[in-house]
Amino acid sequence: MATLTILYGHPEDPVAFEDYYANRHLPWATKTMPGVQGAQLRRVLGAPGGNPLYYRIAEMTWPDHDALQAALATDEGKAVLADTENFATGGAVMLVGQEDQPA
Amino acid sequence: MATLTILYGHPEDPVAFEDYYANRHLPWATKTMPGVQGAQLRRVLGAPGGNPLYYRIAEMTWPDHDALQAALATDEGKAVLADTENFATGGAVMLVGQEDQPA
Repeated sequence: MATLTILYGHPEDPVAFEDYYANRHLPWATKTMPGVQGAQLRRVLGAPGGNPLYYRIAEMTWPDHDALQAALATDEGKAVLADTENFATGGAVMLVGQEDQPA
Repeated sequence: MATLTILYGHPEDPVAFEDYYANRHLPWATKTMPGVQGAQLRRVLGAPGGNPLYYRIAEMTWPDHDALQAALATDEGKAVLADTENFATGGAVMLVGQEDQPA
C-alpha cells in the first residue's frame, strides 16, 4: 500500500480552512483523484510535551507506489494538489510513502 | 480512534537508524507501550515536486484519545518516547490526533 500524507500547518483562519476543506476541497479531491482507495483524516489535538507543529493530517491511499505516482502525474492529480494553496494558509507538507512493517 | 504520529527527520546515518529502529526500538515499544492497538509504519520515498521533509512516518493507534493520553503519561510511555533520542538523529516530530472524517 502506498500513501500520500499531507501535513497541514496551522492556518491563519481555522474557520475558513475548515469550511473550504470540508465543503470544497475534500468532496472534489476524493471524486477527482484517480484510483484513490481511501482517505483517513485526522485533526491534531496536541503533542507530547509541547505545541503541535501541524494542524491536520490527511492520508490518501493507493494500492501501490506506481498507482500513486501515476495519479499525481495526471492533470486531475496536479489540480487537486494545487488546490491546497487556496485554503492551506499555514502551508502543506506532502510525503509519498510506502508501507514498511519490519518483521 | 486516536493516533500518535511520529515524523522522523532524515538521520545522519540511515543504516544505524534502521538497525536500532527495527531491532531495538520497535519490538520494545510495541511490547511496552500500554494499550496500543496497532502500529503502521511507512518509509518516505519522495514528495510531489521536491525532496521529502521527513524520512519515516510511524503511527500508533489507541481506541480513543483518553487511552492514548493515559499511555503517554505512564513511565513506560515516557521511556518509549524518550528512546527516540537514542537513534533519531534527524529529530522526531510527534502529533496526537483524532480521526475526523467529514460527512
